[in-house]
Amino acid sequence: MKTYSIIISMLIVLITQSAAQSVKRSEYEGAKPKYVFCFIGDGMGFSQISLTERYLKATDRKEPKLNWSEFPYHGYYTTHATNRVITASAAGGTALATGEKTSVNSIGVDASKTKPLLNVSELSQQHGMKVGIVTSVSLDNATPASFYAHQTSRSKYYEISLDLSKSGFNYFAGGGFKRPEGNDKKDEKNIDRNMGGLGSDKKVKGGQPNSLDVAKQRGYSIINTYDGFHNLKKGDDKLIVSAPQLAHAKSIAYGIDQGRYNEYISLADLTQKGIEVLDNKKGFFMMVEGGKIDWSCHANDAATTIKEVLELEKAVEVAFDFYKKHPKETLIIVCADHETGGLSMGSTTSGMASDFTLLQHQNVSYNEFKKIIQAYKEEHKDNYKFEDVLQLITKHFGLGEANKNLAFTDYDLKRLKDAFISSMFSEVKQESHDDHYRALYGYRDPITVTTCHIFAEKAGIDWTTFAHSANDVPVSAIGVGEELFNGYFDNSDIGKNLMFLIKK
Amino acid sequence: MKTYSIIISMLIVLITQSAAQSVKRSEYEGAKPKYVFCFIGDGMGFSQISLTERYLKATDRKEPKLNWSEFPYHGYYTTHATNRVITASAAGGTALATGEKTSVNSIGVDASKTKPLLNVSELSQQHGMKVGIVTSVSLDNATPASFYAHQTSRSKYYEISLDLSKSGFNYFAGGGFKRPEGNDKKDEKNIDRNMGGLGSDKKVKGGQPNSLDVAKQRGYSIINTYDGFHNLKKGDDKLIVSAPQLAHAKSIAYGIDQGRYNEYISLADLTQKGIEVLDNKKGFFMMVEGGKIDWSCHANDAATTIKEVLELEKAVEVAFDFYKKHPKETLIIVCADHETGGLSMGSTTSGMASDFTLLQHQNVSYNEFKKIIQAYKEEHKDNYKFEDVLQLITKHFGLGEANKNLAFTDYDLKRLKDAFISSMFSEVKQESHDDHYRALYGYRDPITVTTCHIFAEKAGIDWTTFAHSANDVPVSAIGVGEELFNGYFDNSDIGKNLMFLIKK
Repeated sequence: MKTYSIIISMLIVLITQSAAQSVKRSEYEGAKPKYVFCFIGDGMGFSQISLTERYLKATDRKEPKLNWSEFPYHGYYTTHATNRVITASAAGGTALATGEKTSVNSIGVDASKTKPLLNVSELSQQHGMKVGIVTSVSLDNATPASFYAHQTSRSKYYEISLDLSKSGFNYFAGGGFKRPEGNDKKDEKNIDRNMGGLGSDKKVKGGQPNSLDVAKQRGYSIINTYDGFHNLKKGDDKLIVSAPQLAHAKSIAYGIDQGRYNEYISLADLTQKGIEVLDNKKGFFMMVEGGKIDWSCHANDAATTIKEVLELEKAVEVAFDFYKKHPKETLIIVCADHETGGLSMGSTTSGMASDFTLLQHQNVSYNEFKKIIQAYKEEHKDNYKFEDVLQLITKHFGLGEANKNLAFTDYDLKRLKDAFISSMFSEVKQESHDDHYRALYGYRDPITVTTCHIFAEKAGIDWTTFAHSANDVPVSAIGVGEELFNGYFDNSDIGKNLMFLIKK
Repeated sequence: MKTYSIIISMLIVLITQSAAQSVKRSEYEGAKPKYVFCFIGDGMGFSQISLTERYLKATDRKEPKLNWSEFPYHGYYTTHATNRVITASAAGGTALATGEKTSVNSIGVDASKTKPLLNVSELSQQHGMKVGIVTSVSLDNATPASFYAHQTSRSKYYEISLDLSKSGFNYFAGGGFKRPEGNDKKDEKNIDRNMGGLGSDKKVKGGQPNSLDVAKQRGYSIINTYDGFHNLKKGDDKLIVSAPQLAHAKSIAYGIDQGRYNEYISLADLTQKGIEVLDNKKGFFMMVEGGKIDWSCHANDAATTIKEVLELEKAVEVAFDFYKKHPKETLIIVCADHETGGLSMGSTTSGMASDFTLLQHQNVSYNEFKKIIQAYKEEHKDNYKFEDVLQLITKHFGLGEANKNLAFTDYDLKRLKDAFISSMFSEVKQESHDDHYRALYGYRDPITVTTCHIFAEKAGIDWTTFAHSANDVPVSAIGVGEELFNGYFDNSDIGKNLMFLIKK
């Protein structure tokens, strides 16, 4: 009887210890991966993924699941920062890169902003692996920066760009630097706000060297032409690639707007080239960020979001092809820093109905449509017609066409009319807008964002916020070490798992 | 070289075959569970769970994770019905119970409504196990019905209640029958709408026997008193328990409203009693539904939702205690039929901020507050004062109290005033309300639902719909067969897994 009790007690201890993962690091008996791919969909929560898959099913893609959804291991995790439940890309990226949680806006430093945190790229470098950092946004943006920089504020773009070339990593590719010549006034205000415990933390004043020149002095080549990129080959090293077709804020133009560019280098192209230049007998670590999923979700732009998820999928496909050649040496994970927008497949306006095929009718991103509205505004000074704007909406979203199941209701027209007035005639400063205005439009162009909202509702989708959410996000894994990414855990476990595997 | 190619090809085949689960049924080498618990949080998606955990953390519960979040295996799945992306409890419950997808509103029959589908409870009975069906809503509701009935429409409450006693299952416990004397006119309208391929499908007319009497004739005991319930003991069989403290639609009163009842039998009590009466040497299958998570989410009532998730947790705790005594024979899964409300932890109005401790200040459910408003309306005929209603809101939600960080903004007051007018003075029929009205209030009481919305926003939460969403939902598992519930799959896989394990 006593033995029986002891066994029961032992079992209970075992149960209590079995955390929310079926395989924990302490139990891992697998190998060390030689090639590690960490894909990050910025802002890509469950709904961004499942909406894309529902869209693919509705529009009859042969395989409606995203490639990573077929991976054998899936988990999900909490994303909170140390000082805020709703995180952002700096703290989110730092947790993924270093395995440590930090405060919002901190890049690769601890929550007190006094201690730099070792990241998985540095660790990979220490272990003789090559390192690649790839993104569809600027290289000094928070997510990629978390994988090479150590700064008290994500707004220290200039300092981050200096950290980049200091890293000695082998391949950087994305949208270039936002502030190679120094931070601007708005950055400095943010930096002040994020100032932490580092007493010696100085702001950069004028007269400092251009960080691209610094990079060159440190042995980096800057590639920013279509041909220059395609001519890169195995053996090339210390590269900073900037895609030639940049859209706003030094980002790669949205997938949905791709047709507007003759020379378009995609995230998949950057990933493919990364494999070419990084492949070596000691292996590599490559982080690839689909950075504009977040941006289109901030704009509550569902169709553009889907296209961005599909751009990320193409990049994952490149890694998956590589994996098939080296299945016993490769690990691929696809994860996210946080969810953006509070996206759900269900809208008050449409009830239980939904039709995701309608999303096919949108042919420009929020940003491009905003430009179209802006151009109209400039061309028709003081002679704006609601009907003209409705025509533009119909042209680019199909909205208003009854035969597409996109007819306007009275409620739609009322909202668009209000937004039209706000977009066209409101000259008041953003700051003076009241809460009601802010709830409707956030800091967005009223007519464009209202169009995106109505369009989404017709498809049966809606958003709760223009900002991030604290919703859990998923991770999918295949390859060496895959079993560690199964279960329900914390974002810092992603970084801890990666570093554990590299160290093995 | 040729051998090498063959190995590579084989590996690729292996990769291609490895679906989105790390352990598939065909690979399962474990035992058959003797005791199976299937907990279903109706409407409980990721956000309902993680909001509850965030709330527990914010309000300093020692262990802020829900007990099932600490289970070793976690997965998630799609929930669509065969004929609609956004499912409902009938098709959702049927997929969980039978392993087959069906059309919305079908209970335990296939999508064409011509073929009954074997469910896991029947299979368990065939294998000599006892069966228990427990819910916090009425026993003839769609989710529990999916585990014992076969009907073309969820609205066939009367026929469903006859199926219940026909099943011969051992323990039914919840809120009783909604229509023991026959369906009402509204049901019949729904039944007509859901009529399927069964040509002989007849509506029930007056004069049929009371289904409770039928149950008695079939050997069932009806227990509907507090003492009667507590006097039940091991060995008692063929029981239909109806909790004494029923709220609307024959459901167990919300956890948040528990204090209003002297004699309250909780979902945990019903589960505990279920174990007592079902435990036998051949084992049992028990389904336990937290049915009102869905209802509070339909009302966009966040605080009540949290309390309902915690009621479910207490029920899971009872099973978990049992598991600890029989760890090698027990399986517990906690899952959902669908998400309700499009809940996210992030709101346009509150941006990146959130404070879930504020949710503590709500002391009644949406339903109880609606009653309070109704009572005020009846007492103050034609002399309604906005200030009176604001006082009621403050009393029951803390809203308006600056020292609780719940001060009203101008925008809040504007919305409450509009809702007040709609609640108090609108005598027009629901059907005549326009889209704008419907977007604001759905089919809800304007003042109550607006209060819930504003209250949620202050905490940093928001909803996209009054209906269900098509968002994926999670499952957590512990015990014999747990590893089958890991990965990313479909709701029908839950039923398939359960039936596979019972059959083993």
